[in-house]
Amino acid sequence: MTATQDTSTPATACCSPLVREPLAADEARRLAASFKALADPARLRLLSLIASHQGGEACVCDLTEPVELSQPTVSHHLKVLTDAGLLTREQRGKWAHYSVVPQALDALGDVLRTAHRSAGSGTCC
Amino acid sequence: MTATQDTSTPATACCSPLVREPLAADEARRLAASFKALADPARLRLLSLIASHQGGEACVCDLTEPVELSQPTVSHHLKVLTDAGLLTREQRGKWAHYSVVPQALDALGDVLRTAHRSAGSGTCC
Repeated sequence: MTATQDTSTPATACCSPLVREPLAADEARRLAASFKALADPARLRLLSLIASHQGGEACVCDLTEPVELSQPTVSHHLKVLTDAGLLTREQRGKWAHYSVVPQALDALGDVLRTAHRSAGSGTCC
Repeated sequence: MTATQDTSTPATACCSPLVREPLAADEARRLAASFKALADPARLRLLSLIASHQGGEACVCDLTEPVELSQPTVSHHLKVLTDAGLLTREQRGKWAHYSVVPQALDALGDVLRTAHRSAGSGTCC
């Protein structure tokens, strides 16, 4: 309780939208689409491989072997993650390079955080 | 566990598994199943209605009207969320009552949290 780090944060900013009030239909549709992009083991592994790769980016050529999938299948999954805003794609010569979008992952993670966790930090909710 | 609250936490405990190292296949399957439970707008709204309801629990009889779905459909979605470990169910007389499992939501949210966010807290990663 002595730490001052979070006192500038409005109370409403730290509670999950899920817990604070019933989600509006539009917001629920938007979030469900993001979770759908994550609802596949291969996509989660690809996201993790890219995130944990040097510099938080990876060439598609680095990704096919670890997940044991063909390049077209890997490219399809990467497109789903890119369309969901969780990855960005940059073409360099022959190969596409993918990077994670930390803000997008953090925003989705925050949706799920409950007052239970926030109360544990002693600063809000 | 005094004012220096985070110094006792191992550095590896605060980084998302997604970012720390490539996800193992089993873990990816487990997480994908949880995200699949969330990948539906009606289920997200139901979860949110329960979480934001008084005491973090709600009777199924409170939930059909706000989401404008039939009771069997609502009960199906609640079963998916319960099977995923995100809700608990308690029968009281005629009606089933559902509560959120904050630890399960927090654990899923933490999976998505990146070093980007953790670095902002100044304590780890």
